[in-house]
Amino acid sequence: MIILNKQQILDKFDADAITLLLKQGFIAFSQKQVQMPPVQHLLFEQANGDCCIKSGYLQGDSQFVVKVSGGFYDNPAQGLASNQGLMMAFSAQTGEPQALLLDEGWLTALRTALAGRIVAELCAPKHISAVGIIGTGMQARLHLMYLKSVIPCRQLWVWGRSETALEEYRQYAQAEGFEVNVTLDAAVLGRHCQFIVTTTPSREAILQAADIQPGTHITAVGADGAGKHELTPELVAKADKILVDSRDQCTEFGEISSAFQQQLLTNHTLTEIGIALAQNTSFRDNEQQITLADLTGLGIQDVQIVKGILE
Amino acid sequence: MIILNKQQILDKFDADAITLLLKQGFIAFSQKQVQMPPVQHLLFEQANGDCCIKSGYLQGDSQFVVKVSGGFYDNPAQGLASNQGLMMAFSAQTGEPQALLLDEGWLTALRTALAGRIVAELCAPKHISAVGIIGTGMQARLHLMYLKSVIPCRQLWVWGRSETALEEYRQYAQAEGFEVNVTLDAAVLGRHCQFIVTTTPSREAILQAADIQPGTHITAVGADGAGKHELTPELVAKADKILVDSRDQCTEFGEISSAFQQQLLTNHTLTEIGIALAQNTSFRDNEQQITLADLTGLGIQDVQIVKGILE
Repeated sequence: MIILNKQQILDKFDADAITLLLKQGFIAFSQKQVQMPPVQHLLFEQANGDCCIKSGYLQGDSQFVVKVSGGFYDNPAQGLASNQGLMMAFSAQTGEPQALLLDEGWLTALRTALAGRIVAELCAPKHISAVGIIGTGMQARLHLMYLKSVIPCRQLWVWGRSETALEEYRQYAQAEGFEVNVTLDAAVLGRHCQFIVTTTPSREAILQAADIQPGTHITAVGADGAGKHELTPELVAKADKILVDSRDQCTEFGEISSAFQQQLLTNHTLTEIGIALAQNTSFRDNEQQITLADLTGLGIQDVQIVKGILE
Repeated sequence: MIILNKQQILDKFDADAITLLLKQGFIAFSQKQVQMPPVQHLLFEQANGDCCIKSGYLQGDSQFVVKVSGGFYDNPAQGLASNQGLMMAFSAQTGEPQALLLDEGWLTALRTALAGRIVAELCAPKHISAVGIIGTGMQARLHLMYLKSVIPCRQLWVWGRSETALEEYRQYAQAEGFEVNVTLDAAVLGRHCQFIVTTTPSREAILQAADIQPGTHITAVGADGAGKHELTPELVAKADKILVDSRDQCTEFGEISSAFQQQLLTNHTLTEIGIALAQNTSFRDNEQQITLADLTGLGIQDVQIVKGILE
């Protein structure tokens, strides 16, 4: 069995090649060519942590993948990363373990940020006067880094709960080439931005319906388990078009799940990313629509990023 | 992270200590002290293989466990074991990987056999003129080995599909101290045995209702996923008392699932092993009852056996 540590994995990481694999994965998923059992969730209340276990197999592949991914939100106080985890590849012919990728949660963070870039290609409005990032953690950084290649705007608003964290993020984003405004008031960010990414594990809504202008796109990344959400159900329902990575996962535990379960989305079509990609046109019909993408994270993304690292 | 190979794991294996941990685990599970998400199943038709992913956390423990367990039934023809897999322990405080147990499926096989021993203590009739084993593989061997300490009978009938496999099993069982009869006709085994264990991944029933005498106990181990079964629904319904490791798992995909879904068990109580153990008496009320135990395998068993190995 091959064992790779984080540095070895990052050395093999090719964002563009893996983005292509992720697109193929989303399409295969929506075409029912992927076995992807329901996600397992564990909750560690005493440690302010959670863990999800995802697995997947793309029909015809020589391997299948299992991923254990934890978020332990008190870790930074001990000098540890919040994101933890590993990925494993097994032979689909014999079941033997083939590779252990001790990525410390990085591959999950990277494939999520690359999914955000794919969504931006599908949904971003033509004219963006500022990009908005909700959150200041790892995903807030990676997402911004990969948006740069598909969104030319370099005006940035960032929302966080801590001025220290905002200041650190400002320095990061400036080094990435952005002019950075920080705020503790998400409504202010909403007023200025036409492309917003929400990246926190919040259990209370941060953005309200009144905060968002026509012609805005929101990518909601944080909600990946029961009880997590960053947008009010009314804001979700205000979206003109909704993109989901998986209809089943998003309606069960994604950002849109509350609005869906409250019957607020009965007039909406929930379009999977794989369907939108296969159509090969912009998901956005005009510059006035509010578009929303709900990313819960799919086992097929793990399958594809592991494939990209091991190839 | 500690990495243990199969031999290192077997060197640390203490059957009696782990049996005690397993009993505590079954009781905690039935008392709702265990987080155990629904099992993930993957199917590899092209390789005659399947894989299940189980995870579990016993409230208060310092670690949680994830297990990947495969059965690839064409492996023996290539000189590989059918059972494959590994177990992992992660910190419940930080999410960090703590231990990787490269057990090649042995811990799953062992904790299953030890669960069978626990069931035998609860259900075995007093007078057993012969033990019957359906199947000749690894589980058929381990089960027999651990039954010896709780069932004094040394008369054995074994059913298999291949005379070669039966002959190999005969030699194994003779070395374990049994007088061995082999048969290709499961009905013959049913007529002679009052304690029967079914251990195959069969998708067709092997034992019929008419094959079983009053006063018999059957432990059904093989059916652990949709479509697998070794007993007819009529035989399941003929049981006077039914023990299950998990009511949810057994009714969804265990041996009893067909009978349950056909409404043949509406007059039966499905008692979890953890409930029966907490009552601390025999599950069997008299020597005429037919008792049936359905073992699908629980994530808490993996939690407990990993704890036993790492302690």
